[in-house]
Amino acid sequence: MPIKTVGFIGLGVMGASMAEHLLDGGYELVVFNRTKEKAEPLLAKGAKWAETPAEVAGAAEVVITIVGYPKDVKDVYLGKNGILETKKGGYVVDMTTSSPILARRIYKEAKAKGVAALDAPVSGGDIGARNGQLVIVVGGDREAFDALKPIFELMGRTIRYFGEAGAGQYTKMVNQIAIASGMLGVAEAVAFAKKSGLNPVDVVETISGGAAASWSLSNLAPRMIRGDDAPGFYIKHIIKDMGIALECAKEMHLELPGLTLAKRLYDELAARGMEDCGTQTLIRWYLKQ
Amino acid sequence: MPIKTVGFIGLGVMGASMAEHLLDGGYELVVFNRTKEKAEPLLAKGAKWAETPAEVAGAAEVVITIVGYPKDVKDVYLGKNGILETKKGGYVVDMTTSSPILARRIYKEAKAKGVAALDAPVSGGDIGARNGQLVIVVGGDREAFDALKPIFELMGRTIRYFGEAGAGQYTKMVNQIAIASGMLGVAEAVAFAKKSGLNPVDVVETISGGAAASWSLSNLAPRMIRGDDAPGFYIKHIIKDMGIALECAKEMHLELPGLTLAKRLYDELAARGMEDCGTQTLIRWYLKQ
Repeated sequence: MPIKTVGFIGLGVMGASMAEHLLDGGYELVVFNRTKEKAEPLLAKGAKWAETPAEVAGAAEVVITIVGYPKDVKDVYLGKNGILETKKGGYVVDMTTSSPILARRIYKEAKAKGVAALDAPVSGGDIGARNGQLVIVVGGDREAFDALKPIFELMGRTIRYFGEAGAGQYTKMVNQIAIASGMLGVAEAVAFAKKSGLNPVDVVETISGGAAASWSLSNLAPRMIRGDDAPGFYIKHIIKDMGIALECAKEMHLELPGLTLAKRLYDELAARGMEDCGTQTLIRWYLKQ
Repeated sequence: MPIKTVGFIGLGVMGASMAEHLLDGGYELVVFNRTKEKAEPLLAKGAKWAETPAEVAGAAEVVITIVGYPKDVKDVYLGKNGILETKKGGYVVDMTTSSPILARRIYKEAKAKGVAALDAPVSGGDIGARNGQLVIVVGGDREAFDALKPIFELMGRTIRYFGEAGAGQYTKMVNQIAIASGMLGVAEAVAFAKKSGLNPVDVVETISGGAAASWSLSNLAPRMIRGDDAPGFYIKHIIKDMGIALECAKEMHLELPGLTLAKRLYDELAARGMEDCGTQTLIRWYLKQ
């Protein structure tokens, strides 16, 4: 029987766009969000409002969540009026970037109620969400992944299955580790270029063609040079992700001194009030600005 | 008067290819190398041998050097039988990746003898040298750069002037900093993927399309995963470069904790006998292999 109704919880910048693609794709949508105003545009297009996550779960075969922090994920699934209070059968999909350990716990508790849980965090940012061009990395049962693939395809351009529960979150963590530890290299290179009196724009342009090339060097170094702190990705979010990754690393007895260092520098910037700046603001740590 | 004779000192893997391009480009070549055997192929093609750097300098309008370490550069220019013992007028070009501080010293001592010195380190590796596709970043007097551009063009595809003496070396250091600190991110991401039981090949392929993308992730992570330690770039050389960059950073009162960390990890690997492995061997620090 094809899936008809999808529940969607978490209508932030990402979630609102993703939910809209499902509505445009012909699914009936039941939504919940902490602040109801953010749901208005979707309600105007025909989505139905539910008063709690539990109410969403009672009304939809598939429930998708994309909320803020692991503790929000825990509340929404396992808390009072949470999804698993009412959900029986069907699917739940957490697309928040969250803890793999928590993903495995939700998977188990869901399974006990006949519910198949997937962890399916995304990357590609608000622009990727708006254009349905996200990268979606998925963990959980293969059958559940196959069943929900048409839904994922409305939201993303690259949809990949990585293994059992938690594998989506682990994959997302690998991505965040590469970005966060790698940002040290970009910020240190730009700081050195500035301090040595070079024209940093010329230097970055020249070295971007070789072995130093990276997405961050091409896209964020120019913002570092201009002193543009506007967030593509917030410092407070990279701090959250680094915290999750370091917790996982500890569990697997893996030392990550680069990530530990990156988190320390970002924590210092956050303590100075920069948590709503973009990750490129790391340059300010080096320039003491 | 156009330049007819070029002296070339340092016929390692890089230097031998670079010198050959000059010979093929129609210049007369006078060469010196610590071990004469490496000069044989060039001598067979018509290059002349000189017994010392001073003898090279006495016979050529332009002297190019590409040797190993800053102390070799110092010896070749300022030591006994060094270039500046005999050179009068004309140009000297150090293409070794070396210290900007030393480059400025050579510039001054050369200038006192009417010699224009450029620092012009390269990137692109042995393949870039062989194909005449190096990136050459240059510091020194603009007029000297303009005069020698036809020579550089025989060796490189991107030739750029960055400012006064030392600017070429500073630019090269920016490149090395981005690579070395950035390698932490790649190695930590791969180590995390392996330890969490994911298929690291799939993970690297997936995240290479987004904000985690880098040359190192695409080119070195696969070698890390395979356990292939073969050197594209030697650990002993990145250690040399990081040492130079950290010395410069200290001089400019710039703290580079990421680079300091990367150097510590590479020093540990070198102490374990891996200095002739490639930089991707950093993965072994994380996997305790």
